[in-house]
Amino acid sequence: MTYTLLHTDTSSANSKARAGLLETAHGLIETPVFMPVGTLGDVKAIEHRELKENQVKIILGNTYHLYLRPGTEIINKAGGLHKFIGWDLPILTDSGGYQIFSLSELRKLSHEGVKFQSHIDGSKHFFRPEDVVDIQRKLGSDICMVLDECPPFPCTHEYALRSNELTMQWAERCKAHFEKSEPLYGYQQALFPIVQGSVFEDIRYQSADRLKNMDFEGYAIGGVSVGEPKEDVYRIAEMNCAVLPENKPRYLMGVGTPEDILECIERGVDMFDCVMPTRNARNGTLFTTWGKTTIRNAAYADDFSPIDEQCGCYTCKNFSRAYVRHLSTIGEIVGHQLATIHNIHFYLWLTREARKHILANTYSDFKTSLIERYAENESKRGENNAKTKNPRRKKKDYETA
Amino acid sequence: MTYTLLHTDTSSANSKARAGLLETAHGLIETPVFMPVGTLGDVKAIEHRELKENQVKIILGNTYHLYLRPGTEIINKAGGLHKFIGWDLPILTDSGGYQIFSLSELRKLSHEGVKFQSHIDGSKHFFRPEDVVDIQRKLGSDICMVLDECPPFPCTHEYALRSNELTMQWAERCKAHFEKSEPLYGYQQALFPIVQGSVFEDIRYQSADRLKNMDFEGYAIGGVSVGEPKEDVYRIAEMNCAVLPENKPRYLMGVGTPEDILECIERGVDMFDCVMPTRNARNGTLFTTWGKTTIRNAAYADDFSPIDEQCGCYTCKNFSRAYVRHLSTIGEIVGHQLATIHNIHFYLWLTREARKHILANTYSDFKTSLIERYAENESKRGENNAKTKNPRRKKKDYETA
Repeated sequence: MTYTLLHTDTSSANSKARAGLLETAHGLIETPVFMPVGTLGDVKAIEHRELKENQVKIILGNTYHLYLRPGTEIINKAGGLHKFIGWDLPILTDSGGYQIFSLSELRKLSHEGVKFQSHIDGSKHFFRPEDVVDIQRKLGSDICMVLDECPPFPCTHEYALRSNELTMQWAERCKAHFEKSEPLYGYQQALFPIVQGSVFEDIRYQSADRLKNMDFEGYAIGGVSVGEPKEDVYRIAEMNCAVLPENKPRYLMGVGTPEDILECIERGVDMFDCVMPTRNARNGTLFTTWGKTTIRNAAYADDFSPIDEQCGCYTCKNFSRAYVRHLSTIGEIVGHQLATIHNIHFYLWLTREARKHILANTYSDFKTSLIERYAENESKRGENNAKTKNPRRKKKDYETA
Repeated sequence: MTYTLLHTDTSSANSKARAGLLETAHGLIETPVFMPVGTLGDVKAIEHRELKENQVKIILGNTYHLYLRPGTEIINKAGGLHKFIGWDLPILTDSGGYQIFSLSELRKLSHEGVKFQSHIDGSKHFFRPEDVVDIQRKLGSDICMVLDECPPFPCTHEYALRSNELTMQWAERCKAHFEKSEPLYGYQQALFPIVQGSVFEDIRYQSADRLKNMDFEGYAIGGVSVGEPKEDVYRIAEMNCAVLPENKPRYLMGVGTPEDILECIERGVDMFDCVMPTRNARNGTLFTTWGKTTIRNAAYADDFSPIDEQCGCYTCKNFSRAYVRHLSTIGEIVGHQLATIHNIHFYLWLTREARKHILANTYSDFKTSLIERYAENESKRGENNAKTKNPRRKKKDYETA
């Protein structure tokens, strides 16, 4: 894998927004890039051809989930994850570290590795850092991740320090094992480590610096989006990007809203993944060039205009707000499909547009104007919500919105 | 609407299989035809463009469901159902009679009409036959259905006779009201009545004969697929087709399996609808040229061949049994999408293929060979099921299979 830094935005004194090119075994990726989450080998409610139609260049898979179902051996027998799922563009697989800490039961951590029980059937498993590399060799992902510990938020400085120490040791072991092992399907794979350190500046610095010295092909910033304030995410992204090598891609894990993505691109992040466009689509929350909206709102019941006049996706070109609202309100799968297509299109548009503006040195204006539009729209939504009581809106919608 | 009978199969003495052409306001339909069920304005788990890709020429909508959600007025405001759902090919709408009798609570029947409570919120509604015509005028469906009473199975001869009398009177009132009213969107609509009479030959004859004399543009055979033996369905189809006019299309409501469809085409039926390809897809039951199969079977876990080598659908051209099994087993929406695409493709292939063989006077051989393949495959499935105990298989799978 090679990363080429093409240009750094000069539109404002503090912009560190980068346009780059990532070459992987399964194709080129222009950065900044958004990577839809395909946990179990599919991106929920959207077909592979629809991902491509919306210019998706790389999707995520998840080691923890795929190891449990369908199981690594079946994927190996298929000739790797690309073959198993019928996807010929790049795949990044998360190591499963985050899922072990958020989903599995009775996890028991030691220097050796982590013992956990499946969230599906309670079966017991043990992952050493080396196992996670072996599994990802069998998955054949273009970009693999090391095993890490993701500390909860909040946690003490002492906990974060000890946890980061483990993450550093595991990164080293993963790297050693990765270098000793061979790819199984005739193409090269890359391995990214994960910077941790919770919200503590000293540990974040140390974590990034030590990983930098180990010399990886790219770096992930993890441990964010776990409940800390938004400002911490931006601060951490900025801090870590400042330490990480310029000539390697930087991937901020699990981030985030359109605003978060633009803020973090400005701080030097190249790669993003988040369940937000897909999960929110299934709750009826749509992202548009003019802001975020809840398509299930009664106001859309007889609104026959497209979700976003500016949008070129299949949904906006062919269907109305009223139709998508109807399907989403009654829980039809096609409603989830149309909403997902739209949100994925928007997120991919957002990062493509960001890249264009970086190359044109107009990134700051682009970012500011979109974030302002979103804020204006939010304040209008707030007013409308205060004015009307919509009995159809469930608490759940607010939580996920 | 015009129907042209192009050819009647001569491949066997008792074949009455017909190839025809139906011209509607929204396009031509070659018959025999399968019409996917789009109850609420969408066919579950498949996009409109995917229906077209699989050569679907007409879909169903349902008056009862659409009247309740999103409501007739919203659809009228959109300019009709075609505009509301963004579908420009023909639509047939069922009258809601069947749904009132199967879904709604506390229905109360009188000569005047039917009072019922919504299955969604318990709200009270009253449909006179004239209302059902008015609603379908507002929906703007190419083919409308009269309001009928669908008697339960089993029922007494006396009940069926009384019920059919009501259905006859309602058909007459629907026709009178339909002729008095105008289409709302600048194109012609057609109205089909529904033959009833339960399994009783004399009532079935009388029902078809009276409707024939009322002179409609096409005729539906209803009251089947309500629990009666398969042989009754075939007998009823044969009996009713023998009475109905030759120069009008015949639509057998709610039928059926691939075998049922072929048997009833042979008896002179032109149009079919059934939830089977879509509903079964979501349960993991797939139809193929070699038989019916449960994709969730453990045997498919590492089977990397397509569902059906003969099949040209998106799913079979791009994905393996193992991948579809994986997604279907874990309940991923994409699993439902891929299975639905395949089943819809198969049902449309089946009726297209039937038509080809009718035109070539080879229908009987085609029918017999497919039904034999299906029977052989079923007996193999039976043996395998007796041999193995698959703990993953839930009772539900068997029930819907």
